[in-house]
Amino acid sequence: MIRRLCIIGVGLIGGSLARALREAAVCREIVGSGRSPAHLRQAVELGVIDRFDTDPAGAVAGADMVLVSVPLGAMESVFRAISGHLAGDAVLTDAGSAKGSVIEAARRAFGAIPGFFVPGHPIAGTEQSGVEAAFPELYRGRRVILTPLGNTDGAATQRVRAMWEAVGATVAEMDPGHHDTVLAATSHLPHVLAFTLVESLARLGDSEEIFAYAAGGFRDFTRIASSDPVMWRDICVANSAAIQQMIERFIGDLRGLNQAVQAHDGARLLDLFTAAKDARDRYVEK
Amino acid sequence: MIRRLCIIGVGLIGGSLARALREAAVCREIVGSGRSPAHLRQAVELGVIDRFDTDPAGAVAGADMVLVSVPLGAMESVFRAISGHLAGDAVLTDAGSAKGSVIEAARRAFGAIPGFFVPGHPIAGTEQSGVEAAFPELYRGRRVILTPLGNTDGAATQRVRAMWEAVGATVAEMDPGHHDTVLAATSHLPHVLAFTLVESLARLGDSEEIFAYAAGGFRDFTRIASSDPVMWRDICVANSAAIQQMIERFIGDLRGLNQAVQAHDGARLLDLFTAAKDARDRYVEK
Repeated sequence: MIRRLCIIGVGLIGGSLARALREAAVCREIVGSGRSPAHLRQAVELGVIDRFDTDPAGAVAGADMVLVSVPLGAMESVFRAISGHLAGDAVLTDAGSAKGSVIEAARRAFGAIPGFFVPGHPIAGTEQSGVEAAFPELYRGRRVILTPLGNTDGAATQRVRAMWEAVGATVAEMDPGHHDTVLAATSHLPHVLAFTLVESLARLGDSEEIFAYAAGGFRDFTRIASSDPVMWRDICVANSAAIQQMIERFIGDLRGLNQAVQAHDGARLLDLFTAAKDARDRYVEK
Repeated sequence: MIRRLCIIGVGLIGGSLARALREAAVCREIVGSGRSPAHLRQAVELGVIDRFDTDPAGAVAGADMVLVSVPLGAMESVFRAISGHLAGDAVLTDAGSAKGSVIEAARRAFGAIPGFFVPGHPIAGTEQSGVEAAFPELYRGRRVILTPLGNTDGAATQRVRAMWEAVGATVAEMDPGHHDTVLAATSHLPHVLAFTLVESLARLGDSEEIFAYAAGGFRDFTRIASSDPVMWRDICVANSAAIQQMIERFIGDLRGLNQAVQAHDGARLLDLFTAAKDARDRYVEK
């Protein structure tokens, strides 16, 4: 049971956790914090949080669990704002999509990485953002990755794990660097490709016509290009090294495919497309 | 009213048209043709076609409308097989995803492009294939592009247009080369990117783990990588020049984005992602 959860950044991720914890009846009070009072008032009206304090230092007072779910670029300033204001039994976790950068932000803000800080990342979300998009089922059957460090308090990790399990997620632990590589491949690269494709087509002379003749596949393929640009800017900066590596690898593979297209190498194209279809069909079956 | 429709290649595209024309009650008889008797028997059992003839020359006998919906690589041999066997009032059309190559195939097979041939392309489909995936609503609200040539009989074009409008589609006419450029951008390039991404990730050492941590966005983004590899091999060969050009343009744009990632150029990343989100949101609203 969580006595008081403080969520800093009440959007899709934090808001959905709040709704789910309420449904599971494992949290007594939820306090929100963020920059916009109007937005936080809306979160209260929607029943997502009980009350709010735009000052993070005030919001965390007395909270035994603190989730920071702000864009990666805002993590360090939030950590600085709450440093020294956390309750004695508080556990701090986050929902950042890249872990190395959050850990460095914590090191800078707190002077050293606190033992009560459990870096985390729920692998869930939609292309929507904002508290109005929050829904309690978001984490059901999804995975949450925690990346505790050598000095992380085991009991703190356990409490964060229990919170995510209470909302239906499966929790795994992983080295932060490995997390950042895996996510660069499965999430960051696809988002970068979708954003680039749509922006690229929008710059074509006849873009109105181009989009008019796009079929259903295009709609699905580009759904993630409707994601929050600020969040993705921050992810690209925070996980720059791993993302660069994945983009370069992808460009190499795309060049190989382009050579096969150019050479009318049907056998190679069929091999590539069959391997892709097999892998994708296997993935979907799971 | 169509007296007798002959569909050569009874898969998702041809089968869905057959189902829809039956629902609209604008077609008296539907004859199927293809290479697999078992497959055609299934189409009869499913009520998609009335009867079949594995010999295309026999199947087209007496048909006033003939749709060829086979992979692009098989178009020429089908045209050769039916040449000289079409009824005097027959209109011939196709459903190929690239038009220049089908027109060349018709020129080679018939000696010259017949006036009764109306090249066409319904912009519809799913990642599924086969007659068992066919459904009558597939074309409702979707677009069909016809690319008649200078010598195409206007009445033939009108009859093909009426057929597609009867199943709920909106029909546009376009120059074949322009069609091939537009589709390379909106359909062929996205498919190539999805196939390449999935194949590329499947080759990563820890691909099992990679796919395990893929979230919902990945599922949507890669849906089109479950498409029929033979069909897509043929499209890449048939529309090679336009696809190459789009791949090269995309690689250039991706390189530009990668430079911004490398330089931690948040302003440029935010501009790009915002332009993409705006374009995608506008496209979805339509």
